[in-house]
Amino acid sequence: MCQPIRVSAESTAPPVCVLGLGLIGGSVLRAAVAAGRTAWGWNRSAAAVDGARADGFDAGTDLRAALVRAAEQDAIVVVAVPEPALDAVLTEVAAHAPGCTLTDVVSVKGSVLAAVRRHGLAAHFAGGHPMAGTAESGWSAGDTDLFRGAVWVVAAEDDTDPGAWTGVARLALDCGSVVVPAGAAEHDAAVARISHLPHLLAEALAVTAASGGDLALALAAGSYRDGTRVAGTAPALVRAMCEANAQALAVALDEALALLTDARRALASTGSTEVLVEAGHRARQRHDTLGRWDITDVAVGAPGWAEALRDAGRRGGAVRAL
Amino acid sequence: MCQPIRVSAESTAPPVCVLGLGLIGGSVLRAAVAAGRTAWGWNRSAAAVDGARADGFDAGTDLRAALVRAAEQDAIVVVAVPEPALDAVLTEVAAHAPGCTLTDVVSVKGSVLAAVRRHGLAAHFAGGHPMAGTAESGWSAGDTDLFRGAVWVVAAEDDTDPGAWTGVARLALDCGSVVVPAGAAEHDAAVARISHLPHLLAEALAVTAASGGDLALALAAGSYRDGTRVAGTAPALVRAMCEANAQALAVALDEALALLTDARRALASTGSTEVLVEAGHRARQRHDTLGRWDITDVAVGAPGWAEALRDAGRRGGAVRAL
Repeated sequence: MCQPIRVSAESTAPPVCVLGLGLIGGSVLRAAVAAGRTAWGWNRSAAAVDGARADGFDAGTDLRAALVRAAEQDAIVVVAVPEPALDAVLTEVAAHAPGCTLTDVVSVKGSVLAAVRRHGLAAHFAGGHPMAGTAESGWSAGDTDLFRGAVWVVAAEDDTDPGAWTGVARLALDCGSVVVPAGAAEHDAAVARISHLPHLLAEALAVTAASGGDLALALAAGSYRDGTRVAGTAPALVRAMCEANAQALAVALDEALALLTDARRALASTGSTEVLVEAGHRARQRHDTLGRWDITDVAVGAPGWAEALRDAGRRGGAVRAL
Repeated sequence: MCQPIRVSAESTAPPVCVLGLGLIGGSVLRAAVAAGRTAWGWNRSAAAVDGARADGFDAGTDLRAALVRAAEQDAIVVVAVPEPALDAVLTEVAAHAPGCTLTDVVSVKGSVLAAVRRHGLAAHFAGGHPMAGTAESGWSAGDTDLFRGAVWVVAAEDDTDPGAWTGVARLALDCGSVVVPAGAAEHDAAVARISHLPHLLAEALAVTAASGGDLALALAAGSYRDGTRVAGTAPALVRAMCEANAQALAVALDEALALLTDARRALASTGSTEVLVEAGHRARQRHDTLGRWDITDVAVGAPGWAEALRDAGRRGGAVRAL
């Protein structure tokens, strides 16, 4: 487990078993097939399966059969079901494919890792989170190229199996993403700021705008549309990710509330918005000019590899090739 | 002044004198010329004038000359300078072209109307606000089609001259916009909600995300990018519009703060985000399904015409033809 991974030229990429064929899972299935992998999918409802089959993909509603096949073919199992369905699916994974490399594409990594540990599946698990999505959902919203050029976080804990990490990272690279390594907790703190907080602000903006009546909504243009776009996401999806990350989200929300409360106070006292507006502009520029550098000096499996990867991720590094 | 306007078939559209050749003014000059109008522009700095001339437009840095010509040719004068330059420009308008139809494209209508009244220019004035823009600024950012399909508010107060209102509305229609009538105060209350509040929320989101360090910024994807896009706007422009509308913005900001504070409380007590997320989704859907209907039954200049137009605007009506 602590040897550097060596990949021979003749290694073939393992098959992929995708559990859940919504926007993300359906896009993983498409991208894996496009990358030349053998891949099949499972979905609880027949509608997504019918859609996938109609589009020429291998899919079914029999979870046990999908997992037995995964165990036989030593496939990577990708859990792509909504958070509330996680426990039921992991129970089946533990029963039928406990030895497979396991990953997930659920947005919050701490709660998934805890569930995976509860089900005794941590030995071959490396959590994942592709930072891609649209306001749409379901099989039909999926896209082979959804992950192209996107960041795909592959979580590296101190006890993560290097073979599992490499297998999951390679799948992410095959889907066209760059891989950012991070620990589950620091990932969750980060996405609270850049993904879950934006959803709450968008909802609040949508409500405040609508309180202005039809005149306000008729005048709404670019800043409203961009600022409220993610309020178009299905409430169940927004709630699932925000509520699974409640603690980290509360920290981010408190920071935003403090900034806005200070701005409100300044507006009333001096009439100025300078402090917030200047800071916001600088912050957005920092994002826009952020360089991403390639992590090439970490041998996965060598002593301290996971912390070395996480440290590189914190400093803006990403893996583009393995 | 209280007669309905009748337009004969042979009427020719008046020339247009644009004061200020930034993003909006520069786009008005381009669009007016594209619509077949005679049009010329003035800008204080030579850079924008050089840019406009290089692109084949009639422009200069002599404000007096531009206004004398406007008076001679009975042009519509369009004030497109930033809020802080308003008083200086209106002083020159009052000196050289006090009889011209006057409008503006500054975002806050109450303060412009007050300034116009102070300069004794209200008799031929109808304020305007095209709801279009980008995060860019300056002559080079302008676009002939910036206003195509956009809403252009033309303010109708009880004492607005119907000839001025019609002249300004016709220019907006010529630029490809639909005209939404509104009073200055209700316009300002509406844009606080759909334009100025989005800027403050975007700035707060940008700052909170950057507090998460390079890892958070590296993971930032669609919801961050859309939610912070307008934080890329030059701080001076954001401050000018927010601070000129401080009172209405404070009302909108208080509403947003109350929603977010309630959500924070629910997150801590029940862990649920249901109330805000469901309300936000409904509000955004209301915007997306809002029908815009054509105002065709108001004779501009007939008794009560301004209130009739404003009332129609409040109910989602717009003028598409005159």
